[in-house]
Amino acid sequence: MTILDPSVGYFILINTFTVEPEKAEALLAILSKATEDVFLHAPGFVSANLHISDDRRHVANYGQWRSKKDYEQAGKNPAVQSHMREAAKLVSSFEPVFYDLVKVQAAEREA
Amino acid sequence: MTILDPSVGYFILINTFTVEPEKAEALLAILSKATEDVFLHAPGFVSANLHISDDRRHVANYGQWRSKKDYEQAGKNPAVQSHMREAAKLVSSFEPVFYDLVKVQAAEREA
Repeated sequence: MTILDPSVGYFILINTFTVEPEKAEALLAILSKATEDVFLHAPGFVSANLHISDDRRHVANYGQWRSKKDYEQAGKNPAVQSHMREAAKLVSSFEPVFYDLVKVQAAEREA
Repeated sequence: MTILDPSVGYFILINTFTVEPEKAEALLAILSKATEDVFLHAPGFVSANLHISDDRRHVANYGQWRSKKDYEQAGKNPAVQSHMREAAKLVSSFEPVFYDLVKVQAAEREA
Protein backbone atom coordinates (compact mmCIF):
# COMPACT_ATOMS: atom_id res chain seq x y z
CA MET A 1 0.00 0.00 0.00
CA THR A 2 1.34 3.41 -1.01
CA ILE A 3 0.29 6.77 0.36
CA LEU A 4 0.31 9.96 -1.73
CA ASP A 5 0.60 12.96 0.56
CA PRO A 6 2.03 16.29 -0.67
CA SER A 7 3.09 17.28 2.86
CA VAL A 8 5.74 14.53 2.93
CA GLY A 9 7.68 16.01 0.01
CA TYR A 10 8.85 12.83 -1.65
CA PHE A 11 10.73 12.90 -4.93
CA ILE A 12 8.51 11.24 -7.56
CA LEU A 13 9.62 9.49 -10.73
CA ILE A 14 6.95 8.49 -13.23
CA ASN A 15 8.56 6.32 -15.88
CA THR A 16 6.30 5.52 -18.84
CA PHE A 17 7.33 2.68 -21.14
CA THR A 18 5.85 2.09 -24.59
CA VAL A 19 5.82 -1.58 -25.49
CA GLU A 20 4.25 -4.11 -27.84
CA PRO A 21 1.29 -5.64 -25.97
CA GLU A 22 2.75 -9.16 -25.99
CA LYS A 23 5.88 -7.90 -24.22
CA ALA A 24 4.11 -5.99 -21.44
CA GLU A 25 4.11 -8.86 -18.93
CA ALA A 26 7.82 -9.54 -19.43
CA LEU A 27 8.56 -5.86 -18.88
CA LEU A 28 6.51 -5.81 -15.66
CA ALA A 29 8.48 -8.83 -14.45
CA ILE A 30 11.85 -7.15 -15.09
CA LEU A 31 10.81 -3.89 -13.42
CA SER A 32 9.43 -5.75 -10.44
CA LYS A 33 12.63 -7.80 -10.11
CA ALA A 34 14.81 -4.68 -10.27
CA THR A 35 12.84 -3.25 -7.36
CA GLU A 36 13.04 -6.49 -5.40
CA ASP A 37 16.75 -7.06 -6.01
CA VAL A 38 18.01 -3.52 -5.58
CA PHE A 39 15.65 -0.65 -4.80
CA LEU A 40 13.93 -2.26 -1.79
CA HIS A 41 17.35 -2.36 -0.12
CA ALA A 42 18.47 1.11 -1.21
CA PRO A 43 18.56 4.00 1.27
CA GLY A 44 15.72 6.44 0.64
CA PHE A 45 13.60 4.14 -1.52
CA VAL A 46 9.92 4.46 -0.55
CA SER A 47 7.81 2.62 -3.13
CA ALA A 48 7.41 1.43 -6.72
CA ASN A 49 3.91 1.16 -8.16
CA LEU A 50 3.53 -0.73 -11.43
CA HIS A 51 0.69 -0.01 -13.84
CA ILE A 52 -0.35 -1.58 -17.14
CA SER A 53 -2.56 0.26 -19.61
CA ASP A 54 -5.93 -0.97 -20.86
CA ASP A 55 -4.45 -1.63 -24.31
CA ARG A 56 -1.23 -3.17 -22.86
CA ARG A 57 0.84 -0.69 -24.90
CA HIS A 58 2.05 1.26 -21.88
CA VAL A 59 3.60 0.32 -18.58
CA ALA A 60 4.05 3.05 -15.98
CA ASN A 61 6.12 2.87 -12.83
CA TYR A 62 5.16 5.47 -10.22
CA GLY A 63 8.15 5.64 -7.87
CA GLN A 64 8.60 7.48 -4.57
CA TRP A 65 11.99 8.34 -3.10
CA ARG A 66 13.02 10.37 -0.08
CA SER A 67 15.17 12.59 -2.32
CA LYS A 68 16.59 12.89 -5.81
CA LYS A 69 20.04 12.20 -4.36
CA ASP A 70 18.90 8.82 -3.00
CA TYR A 71 17.45 7.90 -6.39
CA GLU A 72 20.62 8.88 -8.23
CA GLN A 73 22.77 6.97 -5.76
CA ALA A 74 20.70 3.79 -6.24
CA GLY A 75 20.94 4.17 -10.03
CA LYS A 76 24.73 3.78 -9.83
CA ASN A 77 24.36 0.16 -8.72
CA PRO A 78 25.57 -2.04 -11.63
CA ALA A 79 22.62 -4.42 -11.03
CA VAL A 80 20.19 -1.56 -11.80
CA GLN A 81 21.99 -0.80 -15.01
CA SER A 82 21.87 -4.46 -16.01
CA HIS A 83 18.10 -4.65 -15.32
CA MET A 84 17.58 -1.43 -17.29
CA ARG A 85 19.47 -2.80 -20.29
CA GLU A 86 17.19 -5.86 -20.20
CA ALA A 87 14.12 -3.60 -20.01
CA ALA A 88 15.41 -1.41 -22.87
CA LYS A 89 15.51 -4.46 -25.17
CA LEU A 90 11.77 -5.00 -24.68
CA VAL A 91 10.45 -1.46 -25.13
CA SER A 92 10.15 0.87 -28.08
CA SER A 93 10.61 3.93 -25.86
CA PHE A 94 10.56 5.09 -22.26
CA GLU A 95 10.15 8.50 -20.70
CA PRO A 96 11.21 9.12 -17.11
CA VAL A 97 9.91 12.39 -15.65
CA PHE A 98 10.74 13.72 -12.17
CA TYR A 99 7.91 15.33 -10.25
CA ASP A 100 6.78 16.91 -7.02
CA LEU A 101 3.30 15.99 -5.83
CA VAL A 102 1.65 19.37 -5.29
CA LYS A 103 -2.01 18.67 -4.56
CA VAL A 104 -4.35 15.84 -3.62
CA GLN A 105 -8.11 16.19 -4.02
CA ALA A 106 -10.05 13.20 -2.75
CA ALA A 107 -13.73 12.33 -2.45
CA GLU A 108 -15.14 11.64 0.98
CA ARG A 109 -14.77 7.92 1.56
CA GLU A 110 -17.98 5.98 1.18
CA ALA A 111 -19.46 4.50 4.32
CA MET B 1 -4.17 11.69 1.18
CA THR B 2 -4.47 9.03 -1.52
CA ILE B 3 -3.93 5.30 -1.12
CA LEU B 4 -2.55 3.12 -3.92
CA ASP B 5 -3.65 -0.47 -3.35
CA PRO B 6 -3.91 -2.97 -6.23
CA SER B 7 -6.51 -5.05 -4.37
CA VAL B 8 -9.09 -2.25 -4.66
CA GLY B 9 -9.13 -2.39 -8.47
CA TYR B 10 -9.63 1.30 -9.22
CA PHE B 11 -9.56 2.61 -12.76
CA ILE B 12 -6.49 4.86 -13.10
CA LEU B 13 -6.01 7.73 -15.52
CA ILE B 14 -2.56 9.29 -15.77
CA ASN B 15 -2.82 12.42 -17.88
CA THR B 16 0.53 13.98 -18.77
CA PHE B 17 0.54 17.55 -20.08
CA THR B 18 3.49 19.20 -21.82
CA VAL B 19 3.60 22.92 -21.20
CA GLU B 20 5.86 25.96 -21.32
CA PRO B 21 7.31 26.40 -17.82
CA GLU B 22 5.70 29.81 -17.30
CA LYS B 23 2.25 28.32 -17.95
CA ALA B 24 2.56 25.38 -15.56
CA GLU B 25 0.99 27.14 -12.56
CA ALA B 26 -2.00 28.35 -14.60
CA LEU B 27 -2.54 24.80 -15.86
CA LEU B 28 -2.41 23.40 -12.31
CA ALA B 29 -5.02 25.96 -11.27
CA ILE B 30 -7.40 24.96 -14.09
CA LEU B 31 -7.03 21.25 -13.43
CA SER B 32 -7.56 21.75 -9.72
CA LYS B 33 -10.66 23.87 -10.35
CA ALA B 34 -12.12 21.24 -12.70
CA THR B 35 -11.77 18.68 -9.93
CA GLU B 36 -13.27 21.00 -7.34
CA ASP B 37 -16.20 22.13 -9.50
CA VAL B 38 -17.14 18.82 -11.07
CA PHE B 39 -15.21 15.64 -10.30
CA LEU B 40 -15.42 15.87 -6.50
CA HIS B 41 -19.22 15.72 -6.87
CA ALA B 42 -19.28 13.00 -9.54
CA PRO B 43 -20.31 9.43 -8.67
CA GLY B 44 -17.32 7.09 -8.60
CA PHE B 45 -14.63 9.78 -8.40
CA VAL B 46 -11.95 8.78 -5.89
CA SER B 47 -9.02 11.20 -6.18
CA ALA B 48 -6.99 13.55 -8.37
CA ASN B 49 -3.28 13.96 -7.62
CA LEU B 50 -1.49 16.85 -9.32
CA HIS B 51 2.23 16.77 -10.03
CA ILE B 52 4.65 19.29 -11.52
CA SER B 53 7.97 18.25 -13.00
CA ASP B 54 11.36 19.49 -11.84
CA ASP B 55 11.79 21.49 -15.05
CA ARG B 56 8.14 22.72 -14.99
CA ARG B 57 7.66 21.39 -18.53
CA HIS B 58 5.28 18.60 -17.47
CA VAL B 59 2.19 18.46 -15.34
CA ALA B 60 0.76 15.03 -14.49
CA ASN B 61 -2.63 14.27 -13.02
CA TYR B 62 -2.88 10.83 -11.41
CA GLY B 63 -6.59 10.12 -11.14
CA GLN B 64 -8.45 7.28 -9.45
CA TRP B 65 -12.02 6.30 -10.34
CA ARG B 66 -14.24 3.44 -9.21
CA SER B 67 -14.72 2.41 -12.85
CA LYS B 68 -14.13 3.52 -16.42
CA LYS B 69 -17.88 3.99 -16.77
CA ASP B 70 -17.94 6.53 -13.92
CA TYR B 71 -15.07 8.44 -15.51
CA GLU B 72 -16.76 8.52 -18.91
CA GLN B 73 -20.05 9.63 -17.38
CA ALA B 74 -18.36 12.54 -15.57
CA GLY B 75 -16.61 13.57 -18.78
CA LYS B 76 -19.97 14.26 -20.40
CA ASN B 77 -20.60 17.18 -18.05
CA PRO B 78 -20.37 20.39 -20.15
CA ALA B 79 -18.39 22.06 -17.33
CA VAL B 80 -15.64 19.45 -17.74
CA GLN B 81 -15.47 20.09 -21.45
CA SER B 82 -15.23 23.82 -20.83
CA HIS B 83 -12.36 23.36 -18.32
CA MET B 84 -10.60 21.03 -20.76
CA ARG B 85 -10.84 23.59 -23.58
CA GLU B 86 -9.24 26.15 -21.25
CA ALA B 87 -6.47 23.69 -20.37
CA ALA B 88 -5.92 22.81 -24.04
CA LYS B 89 -5.15 26.47 -24.80
CA LEU B 90 -2.25 26.40 -22.34
CA VAL B 91 -0.54 23.16 -23.30
CA SER B 92 1.45 22.03 -26.29
CA SER B 93 0.25 18.43 -25.88
CA PHE B 94 -1.40 16.05 -23.46
CA GLU B 95 -1.51 12.29 -23.26
CA PRO B 96 -4.18 10.54 -21.20
CA VAL B 97 -3.46 6.84 -20.57
CA PHE B 98 -5.81 4.44 -18.74
CA TYR B 99 -4.20 1.98 -16.37
CA ASP B 100 -4.70 -0.76 -13.85
CA LEU B 101 -2.43 -0.70 -10.81
CA VAL B 102 -0.94 -4.20 -10.77
CA LYS B 103 1.75 -4.18 -8.10
CA VAL B 104 2.99 -2.11 -5.17
CA GLN B 105 6.45 -2.71 -3.69
CA ALA B 106 7.16 -0.59 -0.64
CA ALA B 107 10.07 -0.26 1.77
CA GLU B 108 9.47 -1.00 5.41
CA ARG B 109 8.49 2.26 7.02
CA GLU B 110 11.19 3.91 9.05
CA ALA B 111 10.65 4.01 12.79
